[in-house]
Amino acid sequence: MQYHRNGFKPGNYQIPDEVRKPYPNPPVTDLPSEVDVLIVGCGPAGLTMARQMAEFSDITTCIVDLEPGPLLFGRADGISCRTMEIMEAFNSSEMVVKETYQLRQNAFWEPDSDHPENIKRTHKISDARIGLSEFTHGIVNQARLHELLLEGMKHSVTALEPHYCRKLLELDLDSNLTQDLDAHPITATFERVDAGQAGKQETIKARYVVGTDGARSIVRRSLGIELKGDSANKAWGVMDVLVVTDFPDIRVKSFIQSKDHGAVMLIPREGGYLVRMYVELDLLEKGQRAASVKLTEKDIIAKMQRIYHPYTVDVKEVAWWSIYEVGQRVAERFDDRPLDADENQIPRAFVAGDACHTHSPKGGWGLNTSLPDTFNLGWKMAAVLQGRSHPKLLQTYSPERRKVAEQLIDADRQLSRLVATQPSAKQLAGDQRKTNTTDIEAFMARQNGFVAGTAIGYYPSYICTGQANQELATGFNIGQRFHSAIAVRVADGRPQHLGHLVKADGRWRIFLFGNQQNPADASSDTAKLIDFLAEDAASPVLKYTPKSADIDSVIDVYAVFQQQDLAIEDMPDYLWPAKGKYGLRDYEKVFHAEEGNDIFEQRGVDRASGCMVVVRPDQHVANILPLNAHGELAAFFDEFMLPQR
Amino acid sequence: MQYHRNGFKPGNYQIPDEVRKPYPNPPVTDLPSEVDVLIVGCGPAGLTMARQMAEFSDITTCIVDLEPGPLLFGRADGISCRTMEIMEAFNSSEMVVKETYQLRQNAFWEPDSDHPENIKRTHKISDARIGLSEFTHGIVNQARLHELLLEGMKHSVTALEPHYCRKLLELDLDSNLTQDLDAHPITATFERVDAGQAGKQETIKARYVVGTDGARSIVRRSLGIELKGDSANKAWGVMDVLVVTDFPDIRVKSFIQSKDHGAVMLIPREGGYLVRMYVELDLLEKGQRAASVKLTEKDIIAKMQRIYHPYTVDVKEVAWWSIYEVGQRVAERFDDRPLDADENQIPRAFVAGDACHTHSPKGGWGLNTSLPDTFNLGWKMAAVLQGRSHPKLLQTYSPERRKVAEQLIDADRQLSRLVATQPSAKQLAGDQRKTNTTDIEAFMARQNGFVAGTAIGYYPSYICTGQANQELATGFNIGQRFHSAIAVRVADGRPQHLGHLVKADGRWRIFLFGNQQNPADASSDTAKLIDFLAEDAASPVLKYTPKSADIDSVIDVYAVFQQQDLAIEDMPDYLWPAKGKYGLRDYEKVFHAEEGNDIFEQRGVDRASGCMVVVRPDQHVANILPLNAHGELAAFFDEFMLPQR
Ligand SMILES: Cc1cc2nc3c(=O)[nH]c(=O)nc-3n(C[C@H](O)[C@H](O)[C@H](O)COP(=O)(O)OP(=O)(O)OC[C@H]3O[C@@H](n4cnc5c(N)ncnc54)[C@H](O)[C@@H]3O)c2cc1C
Ligand SMILES: Cc1cc2nc3c(=O)[nH]c(=O)nc-3n(C[C@H](O)[C@H](O)[C@H](O)COP(=O)(O)OP(=O)(O)OC[C@H]3O[C@@H](n4cnc5c(N)ncnc54)[C@H](O)[C@@H]3O)c2cc1C
Repeated sequence: MQYHRNGFKPGNYQIPDEVRKPYPNPPVTDLPSEVDVLIVGCGPAGLTMARQMAEFSDITTCIVDLEPGPLLFGRADGISCRTMEIMEAFNSSEMVVKETYQLRQNAFWEPDSDHPENIKRTHKISDARIGLSEFTHGIVNQARLHELLLEGMKHSVTALEPHYCRKLLELDLDSNLTQDLDAHPITATFERVDAGQAGKQETIKARYVVGTDGARSIVRRSLGIELKGDSANKAWGVMDVLVVTDFPDIRVKSFIQSKDHGAVMLIPREGGYLVRMYVELDLLEKGQRAASVKLTEKDIIAKMQRIYHPYTVDVKEVAWWSIYEVGQRVAERFDDRPLDADENQIPRAFVAGDACHTHSPKGGWGLNTSLPDTFNLGWKMAAVLQGRSHPKLLQTYSPERRKVAEQLIDADRQLSRLVATQPSAKQLAGDQRKTNTTDIEAFMARQNGFVAGTAIGYYPSYICTGQANQELATGFNIGQRFHSAIAVRVADGRPQHLGHLVKADGRWRIFLFGNQQNPADASSDTAKLIDFLAEDAASPVLKYTPKSADIDSVIDVYAVFQQQDLAIEDMPDYLWPAKGKYGLRDYEKVFHAEEGNDIFEQRGVDRASGCMVVVRPDQHVANILPLNAHGELAAFFDEFMLPQR
Repeated sequence: MQYHRNGFKPGNYQIPDEVRKPYPNPPVTDLPSEVDVLIVGCGPAGLTMARQMAEFSDITTCIVDLEPGPLLFGRADGISCRTMEIMEAFNSSEMVVKETYQLRQNAFWEPDSDHPENIKRTHKISDARIGLSEFTHGIVNQARLHELLLEGMKHSVTALEPHYCRKLLELDLDSNLTQDLDAHPITATFERVDAGQAGKQETIKARYVVGTDGARSIVRRSLGIELKGDSANKAWGVMDVLVVTDFPDIRVKSFIQSKDHGAVMLIPREGGYLVRMYVELDLLEKGQRAASVKLTEKDIIAKMQRIYHPYTVDVKEVAWWSIYEVGQRVAERFDDRPLDADENQIPRAFVAGDACHTHSPKGGWGLNTSLPDTFNLGWKMAAVLQGRSHPKLLQTYSPERRKVAEQLIDADRQLSRLVATQPSAKQLAGDQRKTNTTDIEAFMARQNGFVAGTAIGYYPSYICTGQANQELATGFNIGQRFHSAIAVRVADGRPQHLGHLVKADGRWRIFLFGNQQNPADASSDTAKLIDFLAEDAASPVLKYTPKSADIDSVIDVYAVFQQQDLAIEDMPDYLWPAKGKYGLRDYEKVFHAEEGNDIFEQRGVDRASGCMVVVRPDQHVANILPLNAHGELAAFFDEFMLPQR
């Protein structure tokens, strides 16, 4: 797919350049007076939270932004493998895959040792992320990702749409009410910013609030949450440009370090023509802000052109540019619970995304950390609001995501030192002042699972446990996301990515991997486990599923067997359950390993013993247990689930 | 993706069952008085024609249907591999792939020899079509395919939408004007059928008309085109149902023949619950019509249940049903040229789809032959209307597609005999009265390329030539569609399905497959060929591309090389041409074979000599030539293209 040949055009890439229009600003409609969940800010974090809440018809959600409509230009553009997987969970990966530039290679350029005023390619390598996921790292306009989330919200059971033109002025949390779960302890005051109504104030009451209002978050400030870390002393010019150049790697992600003029990071973009460049600007003085530097896109272009010497880069159009200056900072906590809070205190207000962590744009981590923040929070919020889980579940958001933010800051500090030359140029002298792109390469190789988002894992806790059984399935790392692999559906022979069954619908999944016993045999371990799940009073499936609901609506169980010759009619009823008002059978729960592409082999599942892999609604592996660990499985869910019948 | 658990719901499958609504009927707007192309009928043939014409901003098109809005229920549901490829050409394959049931297996059931009153599975096999295309055969509501075509039309440069509630009454072709290409020789008279305006007549004048108005085509009758063949004497009951059953192959395409009650063909459907059944009804008497048989869905269900004995099939909901009775008939010609017409006569009126061929529904061929009919016609019409090609090109539609229709009728006769038992039951006695599903299996294996649509080929002609060079690329059959394979893009390392570059944009493509010489070397055969294309006065690219247009806008050239270590900057400019108002370079035209997945090997391309493969706008292979056949290449295009500068 090619676009932007005659200039950048924002909007839906399924519509040709000639007639594509920016997303129109929607009409401004009244705010509701009271909701379950208030979300402030329509960035990737806010929209992901809203997209998740939109799945539940019994939860009322309001999402608000100060802008008059959806984003059109610029900002982040890297879509990590993990973000792709999350989009698949929201049933929207196809267009992301289709429209993005697929990152396959990295090139490294340094001063030519013979002619140090010239840059020269040192090497070009395959991107280290390839193979970490069934998706590749892609690059696309952040606005397009927003649109897919917005479309998903609109198409959901709640037909959720944002309220634009509202600026949050302040947020009040009534401390007398925060531990009353039915109360609406949050009062948010907004100011209308649309021409006709500018200045008009509105208030809304909410049971929970999520501050996804970006780096200058009012929610964070209202909650008195402090940011820890360095403030910025490094500004980068960033621009999306259409260029004509003789630089050969214009369609390859390139790290370019010049001898005297600093560095450029080049990222090819969707559509075949557009590229993004991050251009290193001079070091800011202590306390100086980028805004005061008063640079324009002309200065960024001039700087970039000096770095590219001897190649010429003729900029034909600047679609978007910005001076981007960010420190590496993390909020001390991601919710309203004070650091010394009582362990029973339930949080009611949260911050996510840039509101609680900022860092340089070079790793492409802003969007890719912000979106998973609320993908972590969303299902927990829904489970608590729907009375399926104990509210303490909400406490797990802050530690789980703060860990990631801290790793991120750490990685960003390292990468920033490597990509930029100027700091060392000023700080170091002589020999030490070395630019070495092989360090970047080594960093990328070391950190690739983190960069791809696929290796991000959570601390052990009651929702990340079973570490003692990790060797039963070495390829499903407890705490990390369930690494999808293909198996063949017994009922119709269709190969299916098992990870794609884990949709963002708030359900838990248990994947049973069978051992060598015939699963049709009632004395086999899987048959006994299924008996337990289907019949035993202690079964978490029976205990936590409302009587009126389908049997898989809270905990959805799949079986994957090594045997190739299974027949669906020989399986226990529970594995092809009757569902819905007609009692239609669901034939899509039993799989066998594919010959030549064996999931047992690929994910290191112990063939002799088999195992259960318990997967959270956000796709992270919560627990691994032996097939006969009926009691442990029950105990796992008993820790935080609330009985329904 | 699962849907229809609580009942069938038509509409956009990206919206959950609970809130999915049927496509609303659009408002009725005025017909234009004059257009270039008038299309009568919004079935797959008509919509494909419209979808294709919609790509061209300088062509005016009007498509009309007597229904009040888009189709919602029933009709065809099989989407062949080739239809999937065509949807990809229209940039809409993703949702078809995602939403369809993927056909992977076939099961065969016959009377149990021990208990002939019972049916018994004889065998289950992998579907023979797997591997014929990068797409698998899928099953989905015809209405959903229509929607994707309608969406593509609406999103195109012409934003084309159908005019509903118009019934064609008659069509007049002014024989004095048919050979004046600028004239509008066609006058169509419509009657409004919407409540407010019922009976009101409207006329529209057109330069060309395409009759895609189904089996009872008024266009065909107005043109005096006769149908040849048998009229129906066999009726089948067809229904889309939600069932609860103990029949084990309910999610596998099954051919079921009972001893005494006839046959059922079972086709699982999208969403995991719905199935379609074709149920054999009794033979009609000569001259008897199905309508007069007065059967209802209850009769079809009862018949089906007898056939399934000893299994029980409890029908919970009938989403759609019909008595489907069709003879095997083909129109003697597919356009308005009499059979004895002057060879120079240019056709102005066409019929396509069911309007010119009907047959039984069992092969799933109706939609899958109708849609490619107009995919064949569309680009020719556009090329003539835009003055790019000689109008004689329009003569090629009828023979090319009649050949397919005749093969189809032939295949359908064979399959009908095999699938149905009743005719033989009445016609044959004793031993001869054998039901043998292995014959069906053998038929499917023999005909699978035809059934998949991937082996459909056209007669040799000036747009299907070069047979003498077939051995240069044995896997690209001249006359058949370009069989896509993957190669790696040199500029960014991305693997790309080459077939997916052949979009339905009216352009011709030439794929140059290099030989063992270094293409960067000016004396290599590919370099010399590119020189010819880029510089020579005889070059078809130069001759047939308007001066103001991009160099690839009429003939789009790609190169695929065996060498793995190529650099885009070493390639001739012509292979990374400057385009558009800024002269931006297009980096997406040069490929190398992928290691371990080598296109030269997969498609039998002669490594020593290389070759050119010329591909028509409808993806069919038009010509194969040696790399040094500059003159032949020019002569090929000179035969039917019109110089532009
Ligand atoms: C100008 C800019 C340039 C950027 N450039 C890059 C880049 O080049 N590369 C890169 O990787 N990342 C870049 N980022 C960062 C990246 O976009 C973020 O990391 C990512 O969007 C974080 O998502 P988020 O949802 O947490 O916050 P944001 O995307 O920042 O979303 C916050 C939202 O909250 C709204 N909001 C803020 N305050 C209020 C209020 N008081 N009331 C109501 N609404 C409010 C904002 O309008 C905004 O829509 C940039 C961000 C910005 C703002
Ligand atoms: C009722 C029915 C049931 C079918 N069932 C099956 C099946 O079970 N399995 C299967 O494989 N195939 C089935 N088919 C056939 C399959 O749908 C067709 O082969 C396929 O749709 C052919 O496409 P087409 O575009 O040529 O014609 P159609 O899809 O028939 O489209 C013709 C269009 O023209 C319109 N039209 C007709 N006359 C006029 C007029 N005078 N003025 C304006 N508009 C007009 C019609 O409303 C219709 O929309 C069925 C077709 C029908 C009509």
